[in-house]
Amino acid sequence: MQIGVVGLGRMGQIVVNRVLDAGHDVVAFDLSEEATAAAAGAGATAADSLEDVADRLGEEKRIWLMVPAGDAVDATLDELAPHLDGDDVVVDGGNSHFEASVRRAETVEAAYLDCGTSGGPAGADLGFSLMVGGPEWAYEAMTPVFDAVATGPDGHDRMGPAGSGHYVKMVHNGVEYALMQAYGEGFELLANGRYDLDLESVAETWNNGAVIRSWLLELCEEAFREEGTDLGTVADHVSGGSTGTWTVQEALEQEVPVPLIYQALAERFGSRDEARFSRRLANRLRYGFGRHEIVREE
Amino acid sequence: MQIGVVGLGRMGQIVVNRVLDAGHDVVAFDLSEEATAAAAGAGATAADSLEDVADRLGEEKRIWLMVPAGDAVDATLDELAPHLDGDDVVVDGGNSHFEASVRRAETVEAAYLDCGTSGGPAGADLGFSLMVGGPEWAYEAMTPVFDAVATGPDGHDRMGPAGSGHYVKMVHNGVEYALMQAYGEGFELLANGRYDLDLESVAETWNNGAVIRSWLLELCEEAFREEGTDLGTVADHVSGGSTGTWTVQEALEQEVPVPLIYQALAERFGSRDEARFSRRLANRLRYGFGRHEIVREE
Amino acid sequence: MQIGVVGLGRMGQIVVNRVLDAGHDVVAFDLSEEATAAAAGAGATAADSLEDVADRLGEEKRIWLMVPAGDAVDATLDELAPHLDGDDVVVDGGNSHFEASVRRAETVEAAYLDCGTSGGPAGADLGFSLMVGGPEWAYEAMTPVFDAVATGPDGHDRMGPAGSGHYVKMVHNGVEYALMQAYGEGFELLANGRYDLDLESVAETWNNGAVIRSWLLELCEEAFREEGTDLGTVADHVSGGSTGTWTVQEALEQEVPVPLIYQALAERFGSRDEARFSRRLANRLRYGFGRHEIVREE
Amino acid sequence: MQIGVVGLGRMGQIVVNRVLDAGHDVVAFDLSEEATAAAAGAGATAADSLEDVADRLGEEKRIWLMVPAGDAVDATLDELAPHLDGDDVVVDGGNSHFEASVRRAETVEAAYLDCGTSGGPAGADLGFSLMVGGPEWAYEAMTPVFDAVATGPDGHDRMGPAGSGHYVKMVHNGVEYALMQAYGEGFELLANGRYDLDLESVAETWNNGAVIRSWLLELCEEAFREEGTDLGTVADHVSGGSTGTWTVQEALEQEVPVPLIYQALAERFGSRDEARFSRRLANRLRYGFGRHEIVREE
Repeated sequence: MQIGVVGLGRMGQIVVNRVLDAGHDVVAFDLSEEATAAAAGAGATAADSLEDVADRLGEEKRIWLMVPAGDAVDATLDELAPHLDGDDVVVDGGNSHFEASVRRAETVEAAYLDCGTSGGPAGADLGFSLMVGGPEWAYEAMTPVFDAVATGPDGHDRMGPAGSGHYVKMVHNGVEYALMQAYGEGFELLANGRYDLDLESVAETWNNGAVIRSWLLELCEEAFREEGTDLGTVADHVSGGSTGTWTVQEALEQEVPVPLIYQALAERFGSRDEARFSRRLANRLRYGFGRHEIVREE
Repeated sequence: MQIGVVGLGRMGQIVVNRVLDAGHDVVAFDLSEEATAAAAGAGATAADSLEDVADRLGEEKRIWLMVPAGDAVDATLDELAPHLDGDDVVVDGGNSHFEASVRRAETVEAAYLDCGTSGGPAGADLGFSLMVGGPEWAYEAMTPVFDAVATGPDGHDRMGPAGSGHYVKMVHNGVEYALMQAYGEGFELLANGRYDLDLESVAETWNNGAVIRSWLLELCEEAFREEGTDLGTVADHVSGGSTGTWTVQEALEQEVPVPLIYQALAERFGSRDEARFSRRLANRLRYGFGRHEIVREE
Repeated sequence: MQIGVVGLGRMGQIVVNRVLDAGHDVVAFDLSEEATAAAAGAGATAADSLEDVADRLGEEKRIWLMVPAGDAVDATLDELAPHLDGDDVVVDGGNSHFEASVRRAETVEAAYLDCGTSGGPAGADLGFSLMVGGPEWAYEAMTPVFDAVATGPDGHDRMGPAGSGHYVKMVHNGVEYALMQAYGEGFELLANGRYDLDLESVAETWNNGAVIRSWLLELCEEAFREEGTDLGTVADHVSGGSTGTWTVQEALEQEVPVPLIYQALAERFGSRDEARFSRRLANRLRYGFGRHEIVREE
Repeated sequence: MQIGVVGLGRMGQIVVNRVLDAGHDVVAFDLSEEATAAAAGAGATAADSLEDVADRLGEEKRIWLMVPAGDAVDATLDELAPHLDGDDVVVDGGNSHFEASVRRAETVEAAYLDCGTSGGPAGADLGFSLMVGGPEWAYEAMTPVFDAVATGPDGHDRMGPAGSGHYVKMVHNGVEYALMQAYGEGFELLANGRYDLDLESVAETWNNGAVIRSWLLELCEEAFREEGTDLGTVADHVSGGSTGTWTVQEALEQEVPVPLIYQALAERFGSRDEARFSRRLANRLRYGFGRHEIVREE
C-alpha cells in the first residue's frame, strides 16, 4: 500500500525506512528539504508541500504525522484539511496529549488515529510498540503499515476510541519515569554501600535471569560500560517531564494514588534546582528550636 | 564434578536438576525423605544425613545449601562443621542477610560463598541469575556448577568478598518491589481512567518494543490473561517484605534516599492494615477544625 | 462602617457576628429566609434580595461574599453586577481557585478582593486568619472589617494583587494536609508500637512546650479525649481534597517538588478505595515470579 | 527538695536554673570546671566529681543526667553505680535510644527514668515538654522537679514503663522532621510561584488564627524576619537525622507506613549529596532510549 509520512526527524525517518523495507510505497515530506531528500534517497517519493503529499496519495489517503507534539500538529492538520475527507486516515505518531487528540479526532474530516509510539531510536531495528486509539475501520486499514512500523503484529493494538492511544502512552511514560528512578535508587545504594562493586557486572548478571531484568536494565548495563561504574561526567540533571506531569495530573483527576510516579517526577524537578528552599528553611529552623549551627553558603 | 545439594524444596530441586542436566554428579539430602527420594529419582545419589553427604563427597567437598534463610543455615553449618576444612566450599543460595553471611564466612572452616539467587521457579528452564560473594578461588572452583545453575556464564558473577552476593541480591529485591509498584500504579490508573481498556492487550503491546518492556511486565500480561482485566478475586494484600525492609535499613545506614523503594514497601504494610490510624485521625481532625462530618464505621 | 454580607452559612454567620460585635452595621442576605432572619435576630438589617442589599448600602458599597466556591460566586456577581461601580468593593471570603479570582477581578466593575479565610468554626471566638489579594486602596478601605473578622490587625494582610489571597490560602491548605498526615503517622506508630500509651496524654504533654506543639495538635488532643485513645468508631475514610489537589497541580506547573503534600493527598485518595489495584497486582506478581500463594478475597 | 544535675551544657544549665528558680537545691557537676562554676554562680552547690555529687546528696538521691546520648551516659552511670541503691532515682534527660534506656533501667541499681525533653533553648523561659518512662513511684518522687523543668504540671507525664519516655520523644522528633518539611514545601512553592510574596507576612498572617498555626511556624516567621524572604545565605544542607532514622527503623519493625516522615528524612540525606547517582543514571538512560542529549558536568 501507499502511505504519506510527514515529519522526517529521527523517528519519522525510521518510520519511512521500516515501511519501505516492508515493500510499501512512501510519499515523504518535511519542512527541511534536506530531510525530504534523504527519504527520497532511501526510496520514498519526495513531495514538496503538504498539498503535494495529498495530491500524490489520491483517494483513500493514509498519512502518518511524525511532527513535534503541539502546535506543529495543528498547523499540519490545518494545511491538510482542504484535501481530506472521511475516507482518509491520519495517524499522529507523536507524544500529543490525549485531550488534544480527542479534540482533533472531532474536528478533522478524516478518520484520526492517535498512536503512542515507544521504543526510541532502537526501534529502527527492532520495531516500535504502537498504542492506537480511534475508529476500528481506520485501524484495520492501517494494519499493514502498523505491522511494518511495530515489532510485528504483536507490537501494535487498538486500545479503544479516540485519545486512548495517547492516553496509554502517557501512562507508559509515567511508569517509565518510576522504573528509571527505581533502578537508580538501587544502583545509588550499591554505589554508596559497603562493597566496591562493578556496576556493569551487577547489571549484566541481573539481566541474565533475574526477576528485574528488562530493556531499561540493559540500558543501565550499557551506561556503566560506556561511562564507567561511577558514570564519569554524567551530571545530576534530568530534563524532560511533560508526559510524566500529564500522568500525575490525570491521576489527580481520577483520584488514583501514584506515589512512585509522582516522586520520580519530583526527583527530576529537584535535579534542576541547586538549592531547594524547603531544605534551606529546615536548616534554619533547626537553629530556631535547637540552636544547631546554621550551614551558610560560602 | 561432584556436588552436594542440601535442602530440596522447590528451588533446591531445580538446582539438582540443572546440575544433573549439565552432566555433574549430585549427592542430595533433605530432612524430608520424600524430597531426597525425588532427587534420587532424578539421578542424584541420596544421602541420609549431613554426615553422609560429607562422607560421600570425600576431599575438596563442594556443597550447595538451599535451606530457608535464618536458623536453618546455622543449624546445617553447625552439623557440617566437623567435616569441613579449608579445601571445601560451601555455597548459601538462599536469601540470607548479608551480615549473617559475613559472620558465617568468618566462622566456617570451609570457603564460604554467599550466592543471591534470582529468577524463581521459572529458572527451572531458563536458569537463574547468581550474585556471588566470597573468595575468588572458591568462586572459580564452583564455576562449572554456576554455569549449570545460572542461565549460563553471563548469568553469574563474583560481586566481591564475603557478603557481597547477598548484599547485591538484597538491593535487587528492593528494586523489584519498586518496579512492581510502578507497574501497578500505571495499571491502576488505566483501570480507573477514562477508557475501558483491555489490560492484557496493553501489557502485550508494551512487551513488544516499548521502553518499559521487562520480564515483570510479561508476568503482568500473564496475570491479566489468567485473572481477567479486573484481576478477579485477587485480594489487596501483599505479603512478604523482609528483603525490602533490609534494603531500606541499609539505605538508612548509608544515608542514601530510596523514596520509591520505601514507598513500595510501605504500600505492602498498608495493604495488611484494614483501617489506617493516620487516616482515621485525619478524618476526625477535619471535624475538629472545619466541622466536616465525621465518617463513622457502621 | 456599613457592610453587606451575602451567604449566611456557618462561616457567613460568624462574619456577621464578629462585624456586629465590632460596632459596624451589617446588611445581611441569604437565599434561605431562615438564615437571613437569624442574622437579623443578631442585629443585622435583613435584605430580601441582592438588589435590596445593593440599594441599602448606597454609594461605596462594601460587600462580603461567603457563598460556596464555584458557580455560586459567579451567579451572585452576575446578579450584583448592574449595581456595582468602581467605588465599590467586593470580598470573596470563600475557597475559590485563584485563577477564578483573577478572572473575576478582571470582569467585575467593583474592586475585587480575594480573601482566603482560615480558622474554621473556632474562628467565631478567636477570629480568622485572612489572606487578601487585590487593589491596595480596597484593602485599606476594608481594614476595619478585616480587623473585626480576623484575630485582629495581625490576623490579616494584603498578600499582593488579584488572586494572591486565594493562592496563599490554597498553599496553606496543602500544608495543612501534610501536617495532619505527619501527626497521623506519629500517632499511628505510637498506637501500634511497643508501649500501651494514652495518646491524649501524649498529645497534651507535647502541646505544653514541645517543638511540635500546634493548634492541629490541640485538635488531636481533643480527638483522643472525645473518641478515646483508639479513636473509637472513626472510620478510615478522608473526604475532601480539592485545595490539596490544586496545590499539587500548581506545584507541577512550577516544577516544585512537594512530596509530603502529594503523599498526604494520595493517602486521602487511597482511603476511599477499598482494594487498591496496584497492590492486587503486586500480590499476583509475587505468584508469577516466586509462586508465593495468592491471597484471594473470600 | 535537693537534686543533682550532671552535665551542664546549654540544656543542663537551663535545668539547673529552672530548678533553682522553683526554690529547690541543686548539686551541679560537669567535666568542665567552668560550667560547674557557672552553675555555682547561679546558686547551685558545685561538686568536683560524680562521687562528690553522690556524697552531697546523701540518702534517696535524685540525679538528673543531661549528658550527650550514647557512651557518656553509660560512663556516667558506671561511675555513679557504686553510690546508688534502690531508693535513688536517676533521670536521663537526653536523646537516648529507647532500647538503651530499657537496658540501663534493667542494670542500674537505682530507679531509672528516661525523660524525653523537647522545647530547645526556648525552654529556658517557657519550660520544656517532658515525656517520662519508668517506675511510677520514681516519677511521683520527681514531680516537684518535673513541675519546675517543664512548662508546669501539664508539661510532663509518665508515658509508661522503662523506655517509653524516649520512645515517645523519638516519634516526636520524626513528626518534627515531617512538619518542617511540610512547611518548607509550602514556602518553597510560594517562593517559586506566581506572586512576589513577603513570606514573613504570610507566616505572620497564618500564625494569627490559621489552621496551620504552630510554634514551628512562628520559627519560620522569625527565620524570614531575620534572614529575609529569600533566606539569604542559608544553605541547602540539613544536618542531623539520628532520631528520625530511629523512628523510621522502628516503623519498619512495626510495619507501620510513615511515608512523610521517611521522605522528610530522605530530603536531609539528599541535601548532603551534591550529585545524586540515581538522577545521573536517569540523565544517561534518557540518552539510552531516546537519544536525549546527556547533560555533562563542566
